[in-house]
Amino acid sequence: MAKTEIRVRYEETDQMGVVYYANYLTWFEIGRTELLRDKGYSYSDLEEEGFLLPVVNVECNYHQPANYDDLLTLETNIVKLKRSKIEFEYKVYRQDELLTTAKTVHPFVDQDLKPISLKKEAPKVWKLLKKERK
Amino acid sequence: MAKTEIRVRYEETDQMGVVYYANYLTWFEIGRTELLRDKGYSYSDLEEEGFLLPVVNVECNYHQPANYDDLLTLETNIVKLKRSKIEFEYKVYRQDELLTTAKTVHPFVDQDLKPISLKKEAPKVWKLLKKERK
Amino acid sequence: MAKTEIRVRYEETDQMGVVYYANYLTWFEIGRTELLRDKGYSYSDLEEEGFLLPVVNVECNYHQPANYDDLLTLETNIVKLKRSKIEFEYKVYRQDELLTTAKTVHPFVDQDLKPISLKKEAPKVWKLLKKERK
Amino acid sequence: MAKTEIRVRYEETDQMGVVYYANYLTWFEIGRTELLRDKGYSYSDLEEEGFLLPVVNVECNYHQPANYDDLLTLETNIVKLKRSKIEFEYKVYRQDELLTTAKTVHPFVDQDLKPISLKKEAPKVWKLLKKERK
Repeated sequence: MAKTEIRVRYEETDQMGVVYYANYLTWFEIGRTELLRDKGYSYSDLEEEGFLLPVVNVECNYHQPANYDDLLTLETNIVKLKRSKIEFEYKVYRQDELLTTAKTVHPFVDQDLKPISLKKEAPKVWKLLKKERK
Repeated sequence: MAKTEIRVRYEETDQMGVVYYANYLTWFEIGRTELLRDKGYSYSDLEEEGFLLPVVNVECNYHQPANYDDLLTLETNIVKLKRSKIEFEYKVYRQDELLTTAKTVHPFVDQDLKPISLKKEAPKVWKLLKKERK
Repeated sequence: MAKTEIRVRYEETDQMGVVYYANYLTWFEIGRTELLRDKGYSYSDLEEEGFLLPVVNVECNYHQPANYDDLLTLETNIVKLKRSKIEFEYKVYRQDELLTTAKTVHPFVDQDLKPISLKKEAPKVWKLLKKERK
Repeated sequence: MAKTEIRVRYEETDQMGVVYYANYLTWFEIGRTELLRDKGYSYSDLEEEGFLLPVVNVECNYHQPANYDDLLTLETNIVKLKRSKIEFEYKVYRQDELLTTAKTVHPFVDQDLKPISLKKEAPKVWKLLKKERK
């Protein structure tokens, strides 16, 4: 599990005075990146080796709005891991208050966006993710 | 149903060379706005009258990526309408190719984000949306 | 000169209730793209042929704020053209009211971001831009 | 002077593989916010007291591109301070390499966007900024 601090940017608010709903998806990606980095791996490296994790599904529930300058905590977990795809779960907190829950699904693909088996093509990352799986 | 043309902006792409996944949510909101406008109502008016439609749930499936400068068609439908909330469905096409499908759920709230009954508080808009419901 | 209509998106507003200042730069790029398209050329084609126009300088003056759902007109002009770089000027109007003026400077570079002479490397586009220059 | 670390988000890249030029403006605002926070003041507080700092001018020079996942340092300084307006200067570094330099100008206004004298209306903040001025 990775815990990432997010400070809400002015740009991320809208005229309703709260964070615009699309911005959470940008944060989730920071969570995925930081989870990998915690394990000594960077998503940059992964891309350079020719592996991409595009998103094919996202589901997000907004319980409470976040506000400008809030210091939030984003918790990111791997909840499913198959050879062909990975599923992440996200929780956004403002201190003890749960603001948002979400999950995303990502197939493992190469640079031409063709499906690959991560276990076969990148056994090192595969093991690392396997261990991390909640 | 509203059909809206979306021209993909350079800013909306990422280094994978395709549209970044959060940007679709921005487009969906354009679809909601245009659906209301087609019926002679603007979301701006709605807000000025004190009614807001925050998002509480979004689910999005990405089938095929969109690219810079693509001219896309966004179809927006109302699929559920209750006194307390509304559900929209979205389909993004590049010509005949279906790229993305999604839905969002929105409660009707006032400016303090307290739930209201749209039927009671804004009967005119209510009727208009009722007629539009797929 | 290219005239482009811009409908302000909800996402582009901030909690001050007006368009966030960075979003204008995204619009300017739409103006550059549409100016090229008007001449029968797409920026996509340009990139595919290996020519890029990164931004090295932007200056923007904000006279009046734009609001959600405003229908704006963006005027884009080429004000300078040299072998090695191009300068665009932008004006954003809400009907007759001038909201914003700006300019951007772009060197012509190849895919490795090395400077090139557009006149030499892409004489067709060069002539087209030369004719367009204000 | 405030030093702020910025980790480049995937969303901030474009298909040229570098950070899209508008995103720097979002970072500059983080710099302004952090400069105030370092002095024990938050921009949120300022807004709640009825003072806004909209941007009327920005000028930005892009020397070298920033890339995904770069850990950048943003230096923010106050370079001019008058009763009616303030000017900030920004420098973005990747380690010792200077990537971007910029400045922004902001009038002091109230919630109706009418000009005010900060010295008169908010003497505490005024003194704090005066001391900070480079």
